[in-house]
Amino acid sequence: MRLLFLGDVCGRTGRQVVADRLPGLRSRWSLDCVVINGENSAGGFGITEAICDGLLDAGADVVTLGNHAFDNREALVFAERQPRMVRPANFPSGTPGRGATMIETGSGHRVMVMNLMGRIFMDALDDPFAVAERELASCPLGEACDAIIIDFHAEATSEKQAFGYFVDGRATLVVGTHTHTPTADHRILSGGTAYLSDAGMCGDYDSVIGMQKEEPVRRFLQKTPGSRFEPAEGEATLCGLAVETDERTGLAIRVAPVRLGPHLEEAVPAFWEP
Amino acid sequence: MRLLFLGDVCGRTGRQVVADRLPGLRSRWSLDCVVINGENSAGGFGITEAICDGLLDAGADVVTLGNHAFDNREALVFAERQPRMVRPANFPSGTPGRGATMIETGSGHRVMVMNLMGRIFMDALDDPFAVAERELASCPLGEACDAIIIDFHAEATSEKQAFGYFVDGRATLVVGTHTHTPTADHRILSGGTAYLSDAGMCGDYDSVIGMQKEEPVRRFLQKTPGSRFEPAEGEATLCGLAVETDERTGLAIRVAPVRLGPHLEEAVPAFWEP
Amino acid sequence: MRLLFLGDVCGRTGRQVVADRLPGLRSRWSLDCVVINGENSAGGFGITEAICDGLLDAGADVVTLGNHAFDNREALVFAERQPRMVRPANFPSGTPGRGATMIETGSGHRVMVMNLMGRIFMDALDDPFAVAERELASCPLGEACDAIIIDFHAEATSEKQAFGYFVDGRATLVVGTHTHTPTADHRILSGGTAYLSDAGMCGDYDSVIGMQKEEPVRRFLQKTPGSRFEPAEGEATLCGLAVETDERTGLAIRVAPVRLGPHLEEAVPAFWEP
Amino acid sequence: MRLLFLGDVCGRTGRQVVADRLPGLRSRWSLDCVVINGENSAGGFGITEAICDGLLDAGADVVTLGNHAFDNREALVFAERQPRMVRPANFPSGTPGRGATMIETGSGHRVMVMNLMGRIFMDALDDPFAVAERELASCPLGEACDAIIIDFHAEATSEKQAFGYFVDGRATLVVGTHTHTPTADHRILSGGTAYLSDAGMCGDYDSVIGMQKEEPVRRFLQKTPGSRFEPAEGEATLCGLAVETDERTGLAIRVAPVRLGPHLEEAVPAFWEP
Ligand SMILES: [Fe+2]
Ligand SMILES: [Fe+2]
Ligand SMILES: [Fe+2]
Ligand SMILES: [Fe+2]
Ligand SMILES: [Fe+2]
Ligand SMILES: [Fe+2]
Ligand SMILES: [Fe+2]
Ligand SMILES: [Fe+2]
Repeated sequence: MRLLFLGDVCGRTGRQVVADRLPGLRSRWSLDCVVINGENSAGGFGITEAICDGLLDAGADVVTLGNHAFDNREALVFAERQPRMVRPANFPSGTPGRGATMIETGSGHRVMVMNLMGRIFMDALDDPFAVAERELASCPLGEACDAIIIDFHAEATSEKQAFGYFVDGRATLVVGTHTHTPTADHRILSGGTAYLSDAGMCGDYDSVIGMQKEEPVRRFLQKTPGSRFEPAEGEATLCGLAVETDERTGLAIRVAPVRLGPHLEEAVPAFWEP
Repeated sequence: MRLLFLGDVCGRTGRQVVADRLPGLRSRWSLDCVVINGENSAGGFGITEAICDGLLDAGADVVTLGNHAFDNREALVFAERQPRMVRPANFPSGTPGRGATMIETGSGHRVMVMNLMGRIFMDALDDPFAVAERELASCPLGEACDAIIIDFHAEATSEKQAFGYFVDGRATLVVGTHTHTPTADHRILSGGTAYLSDAGMCGDYDSVIGMQKEEPVRRFLQKTPGSRFEPAEGEATLCGLAVETDERTGLAIRVAPVRLGPHLEEAVPAFWEP
Repeated sequence: MRLLFLGDVCGRTGRQVVADRLPGLRSRWSLDCVVINGENSAGGFGITEAICDGLLDAGADVVTLGNHAFDNREALVFAERQPRMVRPANFPSGTPGRGATMIETGSGHRVMVMNLMGRIFMDALDDPFAVAERELASCPLGEACDAIIIDFHAEATSEKQAFGYFVDGRATLVVGTHTHTPTADHRILSGGTAYLSDAGMCGDYDSVIGMQKEEPVRRFLQKTPGSRFEPAEGEATLCGLAVETDERTGLAIRVAPVRLGPHLEEAVPAFWEP
Repeated sequence: MRLLFLGDVCGRTGRQVVADRLPGLRSRWSLDCVVINGENSAGGFGITEAICDGLLDAGADVVTLGNHAFDNREALVFAERQPRMVRPANFPSGTPGRGATMIETGSGHRVMVMNLMGRIFMDALDDPFAVAERELASCPLGEACDAIIIDFHAEATSEKQAFGYFVDGRATLVVGTHTHTPTADHRILSGGTAYLSDAGMCGDYDSVIGMQKEEPVRRFLQKTPGSRFEPAEGEATLCGLAVETDERTGLAIRVAPVRLGPHLEEAVPAFWEP
């Protein structure tokens, strides 16, 4: 299978680059499954139903979230009826929506997508390792499904890497999100799980993690109130990871970064280029 | 000028890869100045005088540090007499050693190297932005020196990026360290400052940020005491950033990642390859 | 029933004041049940079996713990066989020991004692509110037991107070520990639960939260390594809370602080003084 | 001299209790100087000029602040022209207002009032210990002034206590604020400085640190967005500390808590009661 994961879509310009580029990539690379983190897609904070539908229409199979999942309250409602969107699975019980979902791709593959939040430097939540253990036990890769994609939304590289090893061999892909900055440590762990500490964002990189830079810079200098953070509006860069799996095991056999747009060095999966 | 920055050297294997590779690279790429972060070079925690000397002997012009600067107490003493090692400039006044140093390279260039620590998710320290402002005011790039290299040792991508814009046009390079994971956002900001959120580590990447992975993984699962963290001992990867400057302005004109060793995708500055 | 709760016993001097004073108070005030937080009783960090036995011998019915529960590894072993010691109930599943215990007092009352840790400014743990909800549902006050004492070990006053209201009417007493500083907000909430944000410590108050003060003060001034924290060794003050319950409901009808020793203003429950 | 310090005034009900009680106490206890923390006086967040004037009119000589100093932007303006209001002295240079002020009381005494913020579990700020050192060096107690009152606005008891010892003998009073919960550790340190870890708030204690309790409790249970925090509106309790000084040295000779109102146990300085 050919999987594409795209990092946190940030504001209007982030949605634009997805809408502009994803349909072409989906066909050019013969993608079987696309997962996109949408936690910042609505003005930088949260997601709306129309925006989620837009990401799905552009070619996403599943949308993942993170700490900003419910910044836009509309998500509290449509999370319940949208089986193709997941919020962190270690949110408190009773939280609207679901933390993992199983979908069937157009190519007939069963893909499980899970969203988890780390706890180091983050909100107080229940243990994501324990939640993953339970979910993976009930959905063995290669038996109950053809691929398992885990978006581990977290700050600390130590927690992300530890989680990667923890599920190595039991998931197809562990990809970090949240820092809005792509890391260059894409690799396949020894057990066969593809890993990347952070996918980066789909947004305008002439910014402070997607936000217009004046106010963030000011807040590091002064402790007085200022204006709200506003998403940067320059041209966005599509950022993520390409993974090819072994159809027999569901594990990864190839992995490569994807970066398309200004500011960052361009990267595409050479192994899929026609 | 041709500058090379290498990220946190982690333990014996990190020192080994520097000793093995740096002399050759220095000559192959005709490097004018090499700066290496050494905060984890002594068994993963701190640095000793012998190890610092070893890094300088291998080809470093200056060694930078971070939150682990004084984990090995020996550094409290030799920091005073070693003008080629800098610890965070925003440590409290009275801290042994210096936060910035001006060296003359073999090629006769004057290079200022500064070390700063961020504050988000880090120790309580004085404002690194204010300290940088003062230091840069007293050492204008292109006038008082030919290059200014700032190792901004920090956790949060927001703080690193904000700092990059803050000094854009006034420093040659702002490079983050501390997460031990290379980011893929190397670029030249609009004012001419080369920027990378994190250089990654010179260490064994089959690890949790340089440490043998069993104990870190265990600590995410259990809250009971365990063993100490020990540096991973597999083959290390050299990780960092190559920057070429405009001799006239001291600003950056080319930037490229460097990754040499197992686990990570190899990267070298094509523009310097003979 | 007459209940006494004593805050974190800190080092040798803390154990001494308990040994010296508790037997007399137990008889003078006709106490039915005594609970003591022992997380710092062994040299300031953790607890040993001999020390736990000593606290029980001095008159404690149950010993509670906190983030330092297992600083002394011996506790990993004897926690399993000591039904009168509880560690935080929201530690990960698989942690040795128990988070709640039901004991029968000498007076024939059934008392449930629970230990929980808050999460604000503390370690990453599972939700203490959810754990309390489950435990209280399975042990209704006034039906399954005659008193329920909850040691909520936490930093933030907001979390402690919110927890107090959360279980108000369902527990006899919610008492905070961990800050080693007694608060003066003892009261009975509207539902009948006695509440105090922090019991303070049984230790030497001429100290920084029980530790000899030179090194803690130094660490606020300098970021260089120093010596270990050592428990202060001056005369200790006994610190805690006295609660009288309605035998019929198990709820609180009287509450008063207890402070006996140097440095702090003395306080005893006037309603029990002969 | 007779000094009274009152903790964080919280919302309308907090202002009401100050207006109702302070004029009478000022005369009944023949107070020479009154200092009030006003960081939450405007709807729980910040302060306005009218409200600051109201606190001064009710009998305050100086108003102190904290992390909420500028929540109400009006304070950015009037802080400049109001010499009787201080915001944390370790805010960045360039912050409007002042961090310390010297006033002359009606009784002709010179009193220096300083506001500082701790850094443990708080915002990233410059070192409050270093700032205090500078300020105290330039204003020796008993020489340049008759009393020095320091409001140390902080979360952690360790930092508050360490700060108390740090200035012991050089200030009349170190009193903590911010937790909105009075501690019971009022005492005179060995050098003569009166100390209290937290003064508590002037507000409605049937609340979570001054806020209506439903929303704070809900936020500990759920990670979904809710309503804003609103100040509780029940009858407030006046909370603070009474200190009597030695006119010759400016050091403290007597200290007692003040708690007047519902929910908490009443306390007044017996040594001043007519
Ligand atoms: Fe995000
Ligand atoms: Fe996020
Ligand atoms: Fe490091
Ligand atoms: Fe570091
Ligand atoms: Fe403790
Ligand atoms: Fe504790
Ligand atoms: Fe406050
Ligand atoms: Fe505050």
